[in-house]
Amino acid sequence: MDKRIGARTVRLSCPPAVLGFAAVGGRMEGAGPLGDFFDEIGEDHFWGQKTWEQGESTMQRHALNKALEKATLREGDLDYVLAGDLLNQCIGSSFALRGSGAPFYGLYGACSTMGEALSLAALLIDGGFARRAAALTSSHFCTAERQYRAPVPYGSQRAPTAQWTATAAGCCILGAEGDGPYVTHVTAGKIVDLGIDDANNMGAAMAPAAYDTLSAVLRDTHTLPKDYDLIVTGDLGKLGHDIVVDFFARDGIDIAPQYDDCALLLFDRAEQDMHCGGSGCGCSAAVLCAHLLRGMREKHWNRVLFAPTGALLSPTSTAQGESIPGICHAVILSNTREG
Amino acid sequence: MDKRIGARTVRLSCPPAVLGFAAVGGRMEGAGPLGDFFDEIGEDHFWGQKTWEQGESTMQRHALNKALEKATLREGDLDYVLAGDLLNQCIGSSFALRGSGAPFYGLYGACSTMGEALSLAALLIDGGFARRAAALTSSHFCTAERQYRAPVPYGSQRAPTAQWTATAAGCCILGAEGDGPYVTHVTAGKIVDLGIDDANNMGAAMAPAAYDTLSAVLRDTHTLPKDYDLIVTGDLGKLGHDIVVDFFARDGIDIAPQYDDCALLLFDRAEQDMHCGGSGCGCSAAVLCAHLLRGMREKHWNRVLFAPTGALLSPTSTAQGESIPGICHAVILSNTREG
Repeated sequence: MDKRIGARTVRLSCPPAVLGFAAVGGRMEGAGPLGDFFDEIGEDHFWGQKTWEQGESTMQRHALNKALEKATLREGDLDYVLAGDLLNQCIGSSFALRGSGAPFYGLYGACSTMGEALSLAALLIDGGFARRAAALTSSHFCTAERQYRAPVPYGSQRAPTAQWTATAAGCCILGAEGDGPYVTHVTAGKIVDLGIDDANNMGAAMAPAAYDTLSAVLRDTHTLPKDYDLIVTGDLGKLGHDIVVDFFARDGIDIAPQYDDCALLLFDRAEQDMHCGGSGCGCSAAVLCAHLLRGMREKHWNRVLFAPTGALLSPTSTAQGESIPGICHAVILSNTREG
Repeated sequence: MDKRIGARTVRLSCPPAVLGFAAVGGRMEGAGPLGDFFDEIGEDHFWGQKTWEQGESTMQRHALNKALEKATLREGDLDYVLAGDLLNQCIGSSFALRGSGAPFYGLYGACSTMGEALSLAALLIDGGFARRAAALTSSHFCTAERQYRAPVPYGSQRAPTAQWTATAAGCCILGAEGDGPYVTHVTAGKIVDLGIDDANNMGAAMAPAAYDTLSAVLRDTHTLPKDYDLIVTGDLGKLGHDIVVDFFARDGIDIAPQYDDCALLLFDRAEQDMHCGGSGCGCSAAVLCAHLLRGMREKHWNRVLFAPTGALLSPTSTAQGESIPGICHAVILSNTREG
C-alpha cells in the first residue's frame, strides 16, 4: 500500500499517538516564558558532571527518563530510540544512550533533529516495525559555543543576527495505541541552499528550507495556513520568521496569523536579550515538549504543523567559504486520528 | 500488523530489492583486492576540488550518480536519500546532497552508517512510505586523519592496532519492485560499551556490539552461522574479528567458517601494511557495493548477513577520558524474497 500523498508527504494509515513527553532545560530557559512548563530546570550547567558535554548527555537522559515516567513505561518498552544532537559525532546522544538497552538509530539533522526523529519514529510505528519509539534530542549553550564559535570564557561579542543556543533537551515517546495527540502526516525535508554564507545568520540560511517544506505540506495535503491552529518552525528566529512570512506573501498566502517559531517562543527576546532568538536541537524539542504538546492536550490547539529547521554547516565548511545548506522536517500533530 | 520477530529483528513483509549499487574509491582502495570491482577509482585525493572535504562530498555524489545510472533511474525517482559520514556535522553528506531535489534524512552511525541507512531505507519501503530509497555514505583518509587524529602532513606513527580509514563511498538503491538481492530482515543495534578507551583500538571497542547484534539476529531468526553463505561485519579489523570469533566460541558456536570483516576485505594487509585493516563509513559501504552485492548477483553467495559496526566516539570524548560506545546494525540480504 502506498501511503504517500503528493510528492513529499506520507499520510499515516494509523496515526501514532504521543504517549509521553518531557522537557529539561537550563537556567536561562527556566527564566523564559515557558520556564514553568519544563519538567526539570537545572541550575548547574554541568548537571553534576565534570564536563559540559557529559552535562548535555545527562540532560538527554533526564528528558528520556521523565518522558518514560510520564508515559508509565520502562526503557525496555521502547523498540527504538531515535536521537541526535549538534556535537561532533553526536556524542550528546551516544553517551546518553550508552547504558540503554534500547535499539538505537542515530540521526543528524542539526536543529531539525526533533522533526526528523519524530518523523522516523512515527513511520517506524505506522509501518508495523515498532509498538513504541522515542524521539530525543538536546543542545547546550556551552558545548555549542566552544565547538561552533569560541570558548565561552572569551566572552565574544555576538552579531545582531545571532541566535542563542538553548541548553535544553526534549523527548517525545510515540506508540501505536494511545490517546494522542497523534502524528497524522510526515513530510521529509530537502536540502535547500540559496547561498547565505554568514554563520551568524542562520535564520536567513534556513528560511528557504522552511518555506520549501511548509509549501510541500500545504500542497500535498491541499490545506491552507488557516486549516491549522498553529504553524511552528524552529529555529528561524526573528529574521528567518519574517523571511518565511514574506516568501508566502509572494505566493498570495498570509501565513502570519497562524505562524510562530520556536526560537521566538523559548526566550523573551526583550527581557533576555537573545538577539534573533533561540536555537539548537534542544530549542524546538523543548518548545514541542514544554509548550506545544501540553497545549494540545489542554485543547488550546487541535491541529499543529510542527516544522523544525536545521543548518547543515560545520565550522570546517564555514572556514572553507561554503554557503549554508538548510533543511526542514515537518509533521502534522492532531488531537484526532482523522487529522 | 506487527512485523517484529523476536526482540530486535523485523522481518520485512515484502522485502525491498536492490535496484542499483556503486562503489567509488581512492588510489589505495584501487590497489587493493577489490580494486577491479569499483565503479570509479580516483587518483586525485581532492577529486578535482579545492579541499579534501569537498572531495569527499564529490565521491558521495559520484557513487549516487553511478548507482542511479546502473539502476536506470534519475534522482527525481528517489523518495528518500538516507546518508551520513564521519565528518563533524556530517558535511560529507549534506554538501553532496546540497543540489539534490531528493528528500533527505541525515544519519550518524559512524562506520555502521551503511547498515543503518540500508535498514531505514528497507523499512521505509516496506512500510509503504517510499517506492525507492538510496543508502549512501563515505569516508576519506585525509579528512578523517585531520579531524580525529593529526593532520596528514605530520606523518604521525600509527599504533599496531590502528586501522586505515578508507577513501571510498558507496551507494545502494532499494526499491519496492525488482530482481534482488533483497533485504529480508533488519536488526537494529544497541549501544554497547565494555570500557575500551583506546581510540587506536576501535576493533576491540566495537567487537562487543557486533557480537551483541549478530547474536540477536541468530536468536530472533532461529538461525545458525551455517545458514548464511557469508557473515560480514565491518570494520572490526583483525583484532576485532578475532574477538567476535572468540565470543561466539564461548557460546559453543563456531562462526569462523562463514565469518569475514569488511576491514579485512578492502585492503591486502600483507602487501598494503594497513595494520589491523580498513575502517571508515566508506569501508563497509565499498565492500558491500564492490564485492558483496556483485557476488550475490553472480550467485557466489545467496544469503549474506551484513553487519557494519560503528565506534560512537569523538576526539572530545576521548580527550575527556571516556570509553568508546560501539554499535552494529545488521541486515540480511538474500537472493530470494523468502530469505
